[in-house]
Amino acid sequence: MTQHSTPDYHFSAYAGQLPASPANRILDMAAEPGLISLAAGNPAPEAYPVEEIRRIAGEILDREPMAALPYSVPQGDPGLRAAVLDFLAGKFTPADGDGCIIVTGAQQGADLTARVLLDPGDTVLCEAPTFLGVMDAFRATGARLRGIPMAEDGIDLAALEAALREEKRVRLLYTIPNFQNPTGITLPAEKREALCRLAERYDFVILEDDPYGDLRFSGEALPPVKAFDREGRVLYMGSFSKILAPGVRTGYLVGAKPVIDRLTTLKSACDVHSNSLGQLICKRFLEEVDLGAHLERLRSIYRARCGQMLRALEREFDPRVRWTRPEGGLFLWCTLPEEDAMPFVERAAAEGVLVVPGAGFLPEPDAVSPSFRLNFSTPTGGEMERGIAILGRLTKEPAAR
Amino acid sequence: MTQHSTPDYHFSAYAGQLPASPANRILDMAAEPGLISLAAGNPAPEAYPVEEIRRIAGEILDREPMAALPYSVPQGDPGLRAAVLDFLAGKFTPADGDGCIIVTGAQQGADLTARVLLDPGDTVLCEAPTFLGVMDAFRATGARLRGIPMAEDGIDLAALEAALREEKRVRLLYTIPNFQNPTGITLPAEKREALCRLAERYDFVILEDDPYGDLRFSGEALPPVKAFDREGRVLYMGSFSKILAPGVRTGYLVGAKPVIDRLTTLKSACDVHSNSLGQLICKRFLEEVDLGAHLERLRSIYRARCGQMLRALEREFDPRVRWTRPEGGLFLWCTLPEEDAMPFVERAAAEGVLVVPGAGFLPEPDAVSPSFRLNFSTPTGGEMERGIAILGRLTKEPAAR
Repeated sequence: MTQHSTPDYHFSAYAGQLPASPANRILDMAAEPGLISLAAGNPAPEAYPVEEIRRIAGEILDREPMAALPYSVPQGDPGLRAAVLDFLAGKFTPADGDGCIIVTGAQQGADLTARVLLDPGDTVLCEAPTFLGVMDAFRATGARLRGIPMAEDGIDLAALEAALREEKRVRLLYTIPNFQNPTGITLPAEKREALCRLAERYDFVILEDDPYGDLRFSGEALPPVKAFDREGRVLYMGSFSKILAPGVRTGYLVGAKPVIDRLTTLKSACDVHSNSLGQLICKRFLEEVDLGAHLERLRSIYRARCGQMLRALEREFDPRVRWTRPEGGLFLWCTLPEEDAMPFVERAAAEGVLVVPGAGFLPEPDAVSPSFRLNFSTPTGGEMERGIAILGRLTKEPAAR
Repeated sequence: MTQHSTPDYHFSAYAGQLPASPANRILDMAAEPGLISLAAGNPAPEAYPVEEIRRIAGEILDREPMAALPYSVPQGDPGLRAAVLDFLAGKFTPADGDGCIIVTGAQQGADLTARVLLDPGDTVLCEAPTFLGVMDAFRATGARLRGIPMAEDGIDLAALEAALREEKRVRLLYTIPNFQNPTGITLPAEKREALCRLAERYDFVILEDDPYGDLRFSGEALPPVKAFDREGRVLYMGSFSKILAPGVRTGYLVGAKPVIDRLTTLKSACDVHSNSLGQLICKRFLEEVDLGAHLERLRSIYRARCGQMLRALEREFDPRVRWTRPEGGLFLWCTLPEEDAMPFVERAAAEGVLVVPGAGFLPEPDAVSPSFRLNFSTPTGGEMERGIAILGRLTKEPAAR
């Protein structure tokens, strides 16, 4: 049978109106050869501990294949959960009532959290701009996203409290406190504490997404939002994507047991459990590798790459363009003098340089943004120089804007 | 902070009333040492191609680590998708309009399908009994499950058509045509074709779950339901869990492109993509291994194991107990003369033998079933003999019932 008469499928309300992100077209282009992509979110090619992963994977399949091959438990490998809690001990002390669940990358952590906490019509507050993938997970529940503007030091607390007074069904606040995606901004400690107090007063849960926290290459480490949690209202989410490899699709959530239990039940209906070999690689990596040295190596990589990008921006960009100076992570955020960066982004793509337009990181489907995101982790040094030179020329050409 | 005052979390409607399956307590006990579990669903320990997996994983990390470690695409590795379509070519000819998506095990295939096709209040029809994990995925959407009784040759078509005339919002029919979980029953070819004609007449989609199809150890292979699909109404779902290893969490769906496209968009919001090393192991396994010889080896393993269990049942069980004689797969289904097998299952567990009570496979939360599921793939020969002897004694003790 080679012909379909293709019926009109009855898609769900969600699938019938899938949002078309303005960023998707640009991200889809990133696969085309010959383009300079400053739009990615992968670790630096030299950051992957390939030798260690190869050795560890070999040892697992040599010595304990039956730990990697059969079904495992939805909550995640108990050894990995213990290793994660040890790893986190330097950042915060989990409460007695806290549990941990392993997820198929932080993206699944957001999806599970959304489905356990949100009904259609509930409200999720997020930083505006924020990570676009997580917004898709929230939208899939039928919840409403409301963005809270970012100040230069992270989410605007006055705007947040105004929104909390206005909204009746805020169930969740999503925040990336360290080197936020896309802005690179870090939230100061006192604002982290303030978020917890607001969560208590207005009765919501905070999903703290911290994929980049270990990639701080300047300034002092800050306690996570979770460290200020008195009532079990913060779900702390971490990932191996940026410190090991995104391809292992392994992340974790730490939070109050009643929430973790429901996440676990839902996870068993979503994918039974995450890939076992990936989990065991992460476990042994935490247990066996000199993490201090590994993370210091990553920090020097990103310190050098970010420094190179900042120098290129200063040299090449029109002085009216502004950009953030992140203390860690993979991204920085450029803001043009005009209202809408989309024509600039399109022109850059036509000249072979891909950046992600700011509108893609805003919750409103028809949003307009003067900004775009630059990634300094993935391009080679040469690509970065050539890409910023082209962008810089465009910032000085009124026609491009 | 070590004390939580633990707020009353506002869970979603779904998470606030998570179904407590009568099977869960038994399955939870399976982790306890010293028990004989005839309740599992893992491949036979000797069925895992450990050497091949070890060699293939080593080669991937030696030769193409950057194929396994960075982010990949939501639809799945293109090479694996091509290898899957080649593998399926002997079973059915995909239509021109068909696409393929790789999923984090067939469980995720069911979850994504449910979320793309079902709204709260829609109806899913399934065989009664059916695989319990998939029912959890359907329930999570707020859809209503309606079970269609199983005849000795699979789903009762008259009962199915009666339900279709009655129900207004049937969007999906879920079926496991080969060696069904839990009954071991195989659906004849003419009933497979009839399902497609009903899908056309009553305008619904069929999710055909075929994890066991390659494990046929007697009788003739039948074309899948998908082979009779004229309109792109059948989603064919396969898995590497039973022919390779469940721990890789890799499965696939093949069906009409408009559906696959929406599954792909949702998947990117669920976990971005499935574990890359697992996908590449599956790809090279399909490409490099003598699959005919591998599958023949699996079939002899399960033929011998099923035969041993059937002989033990004939020897040990009370003659009033009936059981199915599967032509493949991992399970058979026993039916007691009484209405409710639960007391028997509890008594067996108290005597150290775990089986899954039939009620767990029925869609109604308060269902009662005279049956229980036996697994012949996981226990050792000795465990199987001892387990069936204990169960047999209980079938003859009225007190146990």
